[in-house]
Amino acid sequence: MGSEQNFPPPGNKQELEQGTELTPKFDASGLLPAIVTNVDGGDVLMLAYMNAEALRLTLSTRKAHFWSRSRGEIWLKGETSGNVLEVVELRTDCDQDCIWIKASISGDQVACHTGKASCFYRVITSDDGDIRLVSDS
Amino acid sequence: MGSEQNFPPPGNKQELEQGTELTPKFDASGLLPAIVTNVDGGDVLMLAYMNAEALRLTLSTRKAHFWSRSRGEIWLKGETSGNVLEVVELRTDCDQDCIWIKASISGDQVACHTGKASCFYRVITSDDGDIRLVSDS
Repeated sequence: MGSEQNFPPPGNKQELEQGTELTPKFDASGLLPAIVTNVDGGDVLMLAYMNAEALRLTLSTRKAHFWSRSRGEIWLKGETSGNVLEVVELRTDCDQDCIWIKASISGDQVACHTGKASCFYRVITSDDGDIRLVSDS
Repeated sequence: MGSEQNFPPPGNKQELEQGTELTPKFDASGLLPAIVTNVDGGDVLMLAYMNAEALRLTLSTRKAHFWSRSRGEIWLKGETSGNVLEVVELRTDCDQDCIWIKASISGDQVACHTGKASCFYRVITSDDGDIRLVSDS
């Protein structure tokens, strides 16, 4: 990865929380989690991971890029399926170790590889202590 | 941690994606990320991490519990601030390595330790390639 992908190193607590400079805190694997919500309705669509290059590409192209931990490569979400996530707004959190993307989704509105709109298609129920997963209809 | 905290081990791909059994995939540190959104309006409030015990406690008490990676202890969100996150709905994703909590927040509606409603109080702008953070007013 070229140095052009690098971001400035995280500063102290005040700089991280109140600064105007993006200094993302990647974990020991060089990744941070990115939450994607649908700008239309607000549902959480998926969570994936970004390295510095994926974050740079997302910022420059306004299309969500991730680091595939299973394939070990940069991944333009929707490159094969057509369901590209167009970035409407990008946010970071107080300690800059997470990204929130508000996205509109092109194609057939499917974010999950299972064919569901969102990866979060199952509710965890725990009635009477009996924990089950219940799928959306 | 007692064995009563354990969940069944993750099954194969089909079981993970289509099963009705909660078999969370914790990472090498025994954690998984949990996204919290405000059931009122849908904003992402925060992302934190759960171990098996935190997930069990969240399911049994319907109040969001996390594992504090900095303090190395279970953490009832809002225990000191009063801003408890009451679980309205809990979901998991296709491969059961992430949790989404829709919550209502008690107290003064502040989820972030900085005093902001959400931890995601800054937009990342990249006009003309100049990347900056802009706070909500």
